[in-house]
Amino acid sequence: MARVSQEHLDARRRQIMVGARRCFARNGFHATSMQDVLKEVGLSAGAVYRYFSGKEALIDAIVEEAFGVIRGAFDEAAGQNPPPLPDELLAFVLRRCFAGTGFETEQEFGRLVLQVWGEATRNEELRPKIWEAVSAMRAGWTRVVKEYQRQGILPDDAEPEFVARTLMGCAMGFIAQQALFGDLRIEQLQEGLAAVMRMEVPNAS
Amino acid sequence: MARVSQEHLDARRRQIMVGARRCFARNGFHATSMQDVLKEVGLSAGAVYRYFSGKEALIDAIVEEAFGVIRGAFDEAAGQNPPPLPDELLAFVLRRCFAGTGFETEQEFGRLVLQVWGEATRNEELRPKIWEAVSAMRAGWTRVVKEYQRQGILPDDAEPEFVARTLMGCAMGFIAQQALFGDLRIEQLQEGLAAVMRMEVPNAS
Repeated sequence: MARVSQEHLDARRRQIMVGARRCFARNGFHATSMQDVLKEVGLSAGAVYRYFSGKEALIDAIVEEAFGVIRGAFDEAAGQNPPPLPDELLAFVLRRCFAGTGFETEQEFGRLVLQVWGEATRNEELRPKIWEAVSAMRAGWTRVVKEYQRQGILPDDAEPEFVARTLMGCAMGFIAQQALFGDLRIEQLQEGLAAVMRMEVPNAS
Repeated sequence: MARVSQEHLDARRRQIMVGARRCFARNGFHATSMQDVLKEVGLSAGAVYRYFSGKEALIDAIVEEAFGVIRGAFDEAAGQNPPPLPDELLAFVLRRCFAGTGFETEQEFGRLVLQVWGEATRNEELRPKIWEAVSAMRAGWTRVVKEYQRQGILPDDAEPEFVARTLMGCAMGFIAQQALFGDLRIEQLQEGLAAVMRMEVPNAS
């Protein structure tokens, strides 16, 4: 039997992940069986189980990949000196997430993320991984917020972590809206956030 | 047989909804059976089916109630003249949502909302209801944003609907973080958003 190249193995693994992701985004983790995944990717059970021991392993790999892309995009944007303003930073990261994970639509990406959140509230193995990834993101945002304060563009009496979580929440809420309706564009979030950043509010309020 | 009072019927209906909500928040819509709900509320199938024809009817009633509370809270806050600033408005609405729906913890509320979002991406009957409720919210926020612009506190070249959706996204992201981690307080979001609203950014950027 001819030995298969690493490249072939990687491509096959990727093909299975992309098909599984599509199933999960469409029907959710719970309602998707390994049979559904086999059908979607058009491979035999033997071919798929060579790469993934089961649904849990697939979910793990998909979650890990997604967080890798998100982290990479964030680190790239936030590592600039000075860091981009929040609206630009969010738009950059979201754009990269959609492009970098290779989903067919932003809505499909959003739906998978919703699934991951829902799963993380119940799955004790998945939760710590998500906690870790989100903590790292939060630390990254917190550093950026401190830099805004150092530059004097953000009030320095605000707790950086609260601002960080508010901005992360903005991105999470965008993803949720995208999953639900699929009709919001990243530039619209960017314009909306830019306007909020430019409010002229009385300081006493 | 004695006739039961309307009050008794309402209380019983409510008891079933609260128990079902708890099950759904804990295990998700898909993994929860009517058996689980019966066990949770400690009632017979006959007693429960008198009020709800099945799981779908329960989900419907729960979603309708939740949106009713959210809408009521928003309309109350946004109806003030002038409307509160975004940070105060969001905090008011979130506080009301948690209190008004009578969940044991904010995290439990958040988890139910996550379930509803996930379900809405797949359930064709639920989707239009959520779309309608969210559209109404969006229209409400858009009116408030226009009022900020009229007052000259928000840049008037920003499209009101994009700002509205950004602010809704903030609330949605808060709920998602609450569902996942349960460690973010409403006042922290309020402080974070207040700081973003008070940024001093160069206009050219």
